[in-house]
Amino acid sequence: MQKPTIPKGTRDFTPSETSARNYIFDTIKHVFQLFGYQQIETPAMENLSTLMGKYGEEGDKLLFRILNSGDFIENVSDEDFSQRNSLKISNKISEKGLRYDLTVPFARFVVQHQNEIVFPFKRFQIQPVWRADRPQRGRYREFYQCDVDVVGSNSLLNEAELIQIIDEVYKRLKINVVIKINNRKILSGIAEIIGEKDKIVDITVAIDKMDKIGLEKVNEELLAKNIDIQAIEKLKPILLLKGANAEKLAALRKILQNSEIGLCGISEIQTIFDLLDNLKLTANVELDLTLARGLNYYTGAIFEVKARDVEIGSITGGGRYDNLTGIFGLEGVSGVGISFGADRIYDVLNQLNLFPQFADNQTKILFACFGVQEQKFALSWADSMRKAGLNAEIFPDAAKMKKQMTYADNKQIPFVAIVGENEMQQNKVMLKNMQTGEQQLVTKEELVVKIMM
Amino acid sequence: MQKPTIPKGTRDFTPSETSARNYIFDTIKHVFQLFGYQQIETPAMENLSTLMGKYGEEGDKLLFRILNSGDFIENVSDEDFSQRNSLKISNKISEKGLRYDLTVPFARFVVQHQNEIVFPFKRFQIQPVWRADRPQRGRYREFYQCDVDVVGSNSLLNEAELIQIIDEVYKRLKINVVIKINNRKILSGIAEIIGEKDKIVDITVAIDKMDKIGLEKVNEELLAKNIDIQAIEKLKPILLLKGANAEKLAALRKILQNSEIGLCGISEIQTIFDLLDNLKLTANVELDLTLARGLNYYTGAIFEVKARDVEIGSITGGGRYDNLTGIFGLEGVSGVGISFGADRIYDVLNQLNLFPQFADNQTKILFACFGVQEQKFALSWADSMRKAGLNAEIFPDAAKMKKQMTYADNKQIPFVAIVGENEMQQNKVMLKNMQTGEQQLVTKEELVVKIMM
Repeated sequence: MQKPTIPKGTRDFTPSETSARNYIFDTIKHVFQLFGYQQIETPAMENLSTLMGKYGEEGDKLLFRILNSGDFIENVSDEDFSQRNSLKISNKISEKGLRYDLTVPFARFVVQHQNEIVFPFKRFQIQPVWRADRPQRGRYREFYQCDVDVVGSNSLLNEAELIQIIDEVYKRLKINVVIKINNRKILSGIAEIIGEKDKIVDITVAIDKMDKIGLEKVNEELLAKNIDIQAIEKLKPILLLKGANAEKLAALRKILQNSEIGLCGISEIQTIFDLLDNLKLTANVELDLTLARGLNYYTGAIFEVKARDVEIGSITGGGRYDNLTGIFGLEGVSGVGISFGADRIYDVLNQLNLFPQFADNQTKILFACFGVQEQKFALSWADSMRKAGLNAEIFPDAAKMKKQMTYADNKQIPFVAIVGENEMQQNKVMLKNMQTGEQQLVTKEELVVKIMM
Repeated sequence: MQKPTIPKGTRDFTPSETSARNYIFDTIKHVFQLFGYQQIETPAMENLSTLMGKYGEEGDKLLFRILNSGDFIENVSDEDFSQRNSLKISNKISEKGLRYDLTVPFARFVVQHQNEIVFPFKRFQIQPVWRADRPQRGRYREFYQCDVDVVGSNSLLNEAELIQIIDEVYKRLKINVVIKINNRKILSGIAEIIGEKDKIVDITVAIDKMDKIGLEKVNEELLAKNIDIQAIEKLKPILLLKGANAEKLAALRKILQNSEIGLCGISEIQTIFDLLDNLKLTANVELDLTLARGLNYYTGAIFEVKARDVEIGSITGGGRYDNLTGIFGLEGVSGVGISFGADRIYDVLNQLNLFPQFADNQTKILFACFGVQEQKFALSWADSMRKAGLNAEIFPDAAKMKKQMTYADNKQIPFVAIVGENEMQQNKVMLKNMQTGEQQLVTKEELVVKIMM
């Protein structure tokens, strides 16, 4: 019989991987809660009418669709079939899909539950999403997103607090990061000032690549998109602006003096910096005018976070969107949010060896036994350990000492208590420290103290 | 525009529901870890070859299937289509399905990772499963299972510890339960002794319903299954056995004296009771000879848990299976495990009003502000609160006092700190206790102390 497998692009998580991932999720979750965000969950399946058309044509193709139950083929006419158009037929035989991100389900949730929700609504959501992407290194068909958003508030305090949240999460995870910030309104102002207001999308898509392909190639791309050569020349010094945030803002204020929207973007950034002024952040917050982010729904601040010590894409990103719920009929609700990429954070922690060595959820002591009487003795001792909050195990089989020790080693259990006839007579156990090899006969009370230290 | 909806049988979970559910999951998880069980996760999607044929013909129909990506219709011939056999066609256009339970993916995991796993392998798994069942009250198409199993150990210590786990979980959740235990070998012994050895499946299916339909109806069902009337007469006193566990076992020992397998089952139960002897369990453990559990893969102990104070089906169940991984080619690995039904536990806690009133993850203090200067002041104060581990929020908009207070009320935030010009000048805030209505001007240090109390 062949060994069973799992679908490509999906993963099993072993105990140590799950524990490491939970360390990330729990850290993020605690910080979200520290700032008053509350958790929600939405179903894995959404109606296709909710999902379709929200991620562009490419995105629609990447949706995992659920086949209708029962006699689904009834809905396919002979004519439909004879055309052999998979897309058209799939719309007749499936009406549900797996969620593609957490943003659209969140927008759907807000509209559906608008009368139960307290606005401003501060929510976070940590759940898997599914995409029928071609699997490759670091890209999966099932992966978790950790999203935090507030909707129903225009205040820039939210942007400031999201920066604090990013800073606090990475401080706790011990990852050195730089937090990049920009504003869509500044980008609009730049497009306006260089005389290419209508080409804002092409311009943002191109300059978003500065980091990866450099100025030359960006200019080539702009040319290819029919951006005027003079406009490109005007853009150049803006993209190359250097210096501290205050210097960049001062320079920009002059450049954009005739663009109302541009000045508005500058003022927003300035307010966010002012709000953060008194707080001692660990990370640098850096105004990056080449930061554009592909997604078209952003309308104000945009954020991206890079790890300083590892070559890897952005590990957190987000921004403000003024009309996300509009797609479901609820207009005029502004929101801002960010998403933490758990898989990339995992890779960073792994590469930098930053996972804590001993997890709270690990077993602290194993009772090694060689018979039912010993097990019964151990059960009562283990019970005391657990009542003291210590994770304890009893090796269940009367296996050889070596096997029981190997089990403890493999599970990285720091202490083994050997239960033998002599020990039981004295109402003691032989405690072995697995790191030092040291052995010692101890009472139950002594054992608790030893393990707790 | 119509309000968006979610697929029938699925649910959104609001912040308070998510918080209540997490209380259940966290409680269960901590107890699992206290006993040395480790968490794993498996993908939502499994290959259909892994899932099909594992849940009976009915089960196969209830699998949610994922439509293949791309030009799936290519695989359907004109002849296939002309037959319009949905089941046959679905096998050609889908090769993945959503997991139906956690047991089969676990068996698949053990076989696939057998060389990385330390045996005995003690794992738990808390993840959603999907079934295309007809939705009805209390039955959903997406729901969570909380499974804990150990594989690779025959020891009855595992059964004893699982009973301890059940007891500890419900003690922590403050639900009064009775833990029912039986053994498949005893049931086999009974079938043997009444002369209907071959009809063990029909017999277990029928007597499993004793609780619901009573002895009369069970006997009718047995008759309908062609069980001999004399056999039914012999069965009657066994099913009606009353008294303490010890009395039942003594009576049973006589009844089954000529059945080797029956005596083996009795001895197993006896060992489990002996092991638990010294431990002070909160719940009663009750030998229930009518407990059979439908699933055919159980071979030894079987468990079921009932809540005492609410009319509801079993809230936990499980048992020993001697050859679960055999379906994937790994023979001779015995396992035992139980599954907690989170949805039913939720209903019980809800009905008995047992959810803790204030959750740790709740916001402890809201700063009410009326301008950017106040926000900046509040940011620094909130920062101090958070550094002290207290969840704190700042109302982000310069809304009217009433709106900010209503927000605090709705989110059940116990304290509001009002930040006004006077307060800022004195470097203090006006602290309002939302329960008593009491107000007091306090310093930052005083505030931390007040909130922590």
